[in-house]
Amino acid sequence: MDETNKDVKKITDLIEDEGKHYIKEYIAELHPADIADIIETLDEEKKKELFNLLHTEIASKVIVEVNEHSRDQILEDINKEKLTDIVEEMSSDDAADLIADLSKEEAKDLLEKLHWKDSTEVQKLLKYPEDTAGGIMQTELLSVREEMLVEDAIIQLMALSENIGDVPNVFVVDKNRRLVGILPVRKLLIVKHEMPISGIIDRNVISVNVNEDQEEVANIFKKYDLVSLAVVDDDGRLVGRIQIDDIVDVLVEEASEDILHFGGVYQDEKVMDPPSRSIKVRLPWLIINLATAFLAASVVGLFEDTIQTLTILAMFMPVVAGQGGNAGTQALAVAVRGIALGEVSFSNAKRPLINSIIVGLLNGIVCGLITALIEYFWKGSYMLGVVLCLAMIINLIIACFVGVIIPLTLKWLKIDPAIASVVIVTTFTDCIGFLSFLGLATLFIKYLI
Amino acid sequence: MDETNKDVKKITDLIEDEGKHYIKEYIAELHPADIADIIETLDEEKKKELFNLLHTEIASKVIVEVNEHSRDQILEDINKEKLTDIVEEMSSDDAADLIADLSKEEAKDLLEKLHWKDSTEVQKLLKYPEDTAGGIMQTELLSVREEMLVEDAIIQLMALSENIGDVPNVFVVDKNRRLVGILPVRKLLIVKHEMPISGIIDRNVISVNVNEDQEEVANIFKKYDLVSLAVVDDDGRLVGRIQIDDIVDVLVEEASEDILHFGGVYQDEKVMDPPSRSIKVRLPWLIINLATAFLAASVVGLFEDTIQTLTILAMFMPVVAGQGGNAGTQALAVAVRGIALGEVSFSNAKRPLINSIIVGLLNGIVCGLITALIEYFWKGSYMLGVVLCLAMIINLIIACFVGVIIPLTLKWLKIDPAIASVVIVTTFTDCIGFLSFLGLATLFIKYLI
Repeated sequence: MDETNKDVKKITDLIEDEGKHYIKEYIAELHPADIADIIETLDEEKKKELFNLLHTEIASKVIVEVNEHSRDQILEDINKEKLTDIVEEMSSDDAADLIADLSKEEAKDLLEKLHWKDSTEVQKLLKYPEDTAGGIMQTELLSVREEMLVEDAIIQLMALSENIGDVPNVFVVDKNRRLVGILPVRKLLIVKHEMPISGIIDRNVISVNVNEDQEEVANIFKKYDLVSLAVVDDDGRLVGRIQIDDIVDVLVEEASEDILHFGGVYQDEKVMDPPSRSIKVRLPWLIINLATAFLAASVVGLFEDTIQTLTILAMFMPVVAGQGGNAGTQALAVAVRGIALGEVSFSNAKRPLINSIIVGLLNGIVCGLITALIEYFWKGSYMLGVVLCLAMIINLIIACFVGVIIPLTLKWLKIDPAIASVVIVTTFTDCIGFLSFLGLATLFIKYLI
Repeated sequence: MDETNKDVKKITDLIEDEGKHYIKEYIAELHPADIADIIETLDEEKKKELFNLLHTEIASKVIVEVNEHSRDQILEDINKEKLTDIVEEMSSDDAADLIADLSKEEAKDLLEKLHWKDSTEVQKLLKYPEDTAGGIMQTELLSVREEMLVEDAIIQLMALSENIGDVPNVFVVDKNRRLVGILPVRKLLIVKHEMPISGIIDRNVISVNVNEDQEEVANIFKKYDLVSLAVVDDDGRLVGRIQIDDIVDVLVEEASEDILHFGGVYQDEKVMDPPSRSIKVRLPWLIINLATAFLAASVVGLFEDTIQTLTILAMFMPVVAGQGGNAGTQALAVAVRGIALGEVSFSNAKRPLINSIIVGLLNGIVCGLITALIEYFWKGSYMLGVVLCLAMIINLIIACFVGVIIPLTLKWLKIDPAIASVVIVTTFTDCIGFLSFLGLATLFIKYLI
């Protein structure tokens, strides 16, 4: 971070001092990802200025690394010829992603300007939904034919690898381009050049269909510890390749989706989405929540007479209910994460369930005593303190228990436990909170007034 | 999944039919990760039986892949000689992880039984904290000396790579084992065997210090799209190597930690942790929440007279406050995720902030009208419906706005926005909810009774 700040200062100074030709020199030593970091911290004008100073090859890497917001700013009024050159330099998947973000007109315009071969590749990729294997694969392929000799394979590898970078394996296809295996590059070092490669092919190759969901693709990478994966069409023909760095992005994005679910947002919503989208995504859930809120309200309604007699109860009832909600959400977060990481299911749930009761009891006693003390010094009712303490203990035990049992049950029903758990748990804690507090108050009403 | 279920059925049948020697055959074709999946679905006895049938080499891979729960069951009463053999087969980082999970006595026992070289490596690794570069690296190194000839490098590569698998690059060190660059394996294919490798070394090499935090290491992998990374000590000497598959686990675990923070659990708590740990982690936060709950209670306290006059208000006040909490949490989830993915910061927050007000207003109108209608048909007060609707709109606007501004502010203050946001936002929505509803009811009290 300090490194980046130093760079930013230096570059901002250089732009202001009109020292633009020094910037090129200064920046030539930096990694594209570092240049992207610097660009993100600049204001809009300087972003564009700096970007325009970059060589096409570097620019094509930087534009992939900057965040969406900066990318939009940079591309806003970029020279069309420059953009075409930049896209020509990109790998097919990055080019397709960039073009997918443009307006229809701009995209069409750019595709027409691109070299026909790049254009065809990109248009093929654009046809696959964004969240499938086809949507994240590259079409640049390092593949050799199974009947080749080692020397031919080496020549092919050398010719292709400039575009693709360092890879540990090459895919092997038959004459119909059907995937038959992989060939570890290092094995080419130890065999005679005039031998056929067929002897060193590893035929136990894992591949995915081009229509497979990206989350499933990520799971395959994770499960088999892969670095790259072949993508095949319905006939088993090799059509692309997915690299681990694209999967890393998928994994981080998918994992961060759980936060949305946990917060009650059940479709993919981005922070920059227009209000119409946000309302469409959030409103149904708010309405479901409203229904559960009326359930809790009707529990309060049962005790209208008690509240009439002792209005002070209205002050403390949200404390008991809210504290139950907090304790339940804590238990839920730990359980949901444990389920996601495969650490717990019904088969080994006995221990966490028993523990949850103990945790609820002890945290309930502490919170209950504190609440009782505050009430006593504030309002001076000894007996109301006892009722608050007991209600708090009851609610926290239930909260911690349902915080574990609800997500486990949802998982067992094959429902994503991050999704509906919070509303179910807080409905429990609201209802039990009001019921236990107002119920106990009703029971002991003659000691309270 | 269906594939796994079929395998499980087959294997369970085979274990029951005493067809154990068929199992070995059947399982020999499966990937260790698939065998791990099968083991996880078996009951404890069958887990042990199946695991004991595996060849040592396969067993060493399977034990790494199974979840913690199954691993504990399998290792519970495993034959010590067998365990030693299995650990000898493992890569150093996996061996260290497994040994770190054993009891002190068992670990000491196992380390004594291991081959001295493996034992030394593992003991070195055990000294690094779990969540540092040292804690996740392997010590098996594919490195060559910079003064080597190409032919020597090829021989060294062949000798070492059996243990390490297919890699695209080899590290290059000087005579003091200081890291000087990397050597792409494919380049060895195109140069003459009697040439020095110095001409094909890429000296622009990225490395991390052995004490670097694993989250920072993961960020470096993500930022530079790496597949493996050199780990060096304070003197720049190469001491280990981190592979992308270990980083994938780190990324998934770190991302899933946000769920804990969002749920109000601020230290790493596992679902199987003992109650003492859970209480220690969760109680401080519950007590802070209790303080904010009393703040909300004191807002209710301001209106005791109004509630005394009209007890029905006590029924509906949690509806307004709760609905604000839900809307605020939704806004928060979207904002926290946007911040985590680098899509929003104060510099471009104008649009999401304006949008949040629009979303709050419109969702508030819909929820307010529904609430008013339900109240009217349930309790029959036209004017109470109006008050509910207005209070709901006010609270949802505030909720959506603070749901965005609070995490942005925390981020700007360099505080993790997932951490304290929920409590701040719900404190706002509780207080504003009670204040707007009871305040409006007080204003219009003469129309309400």
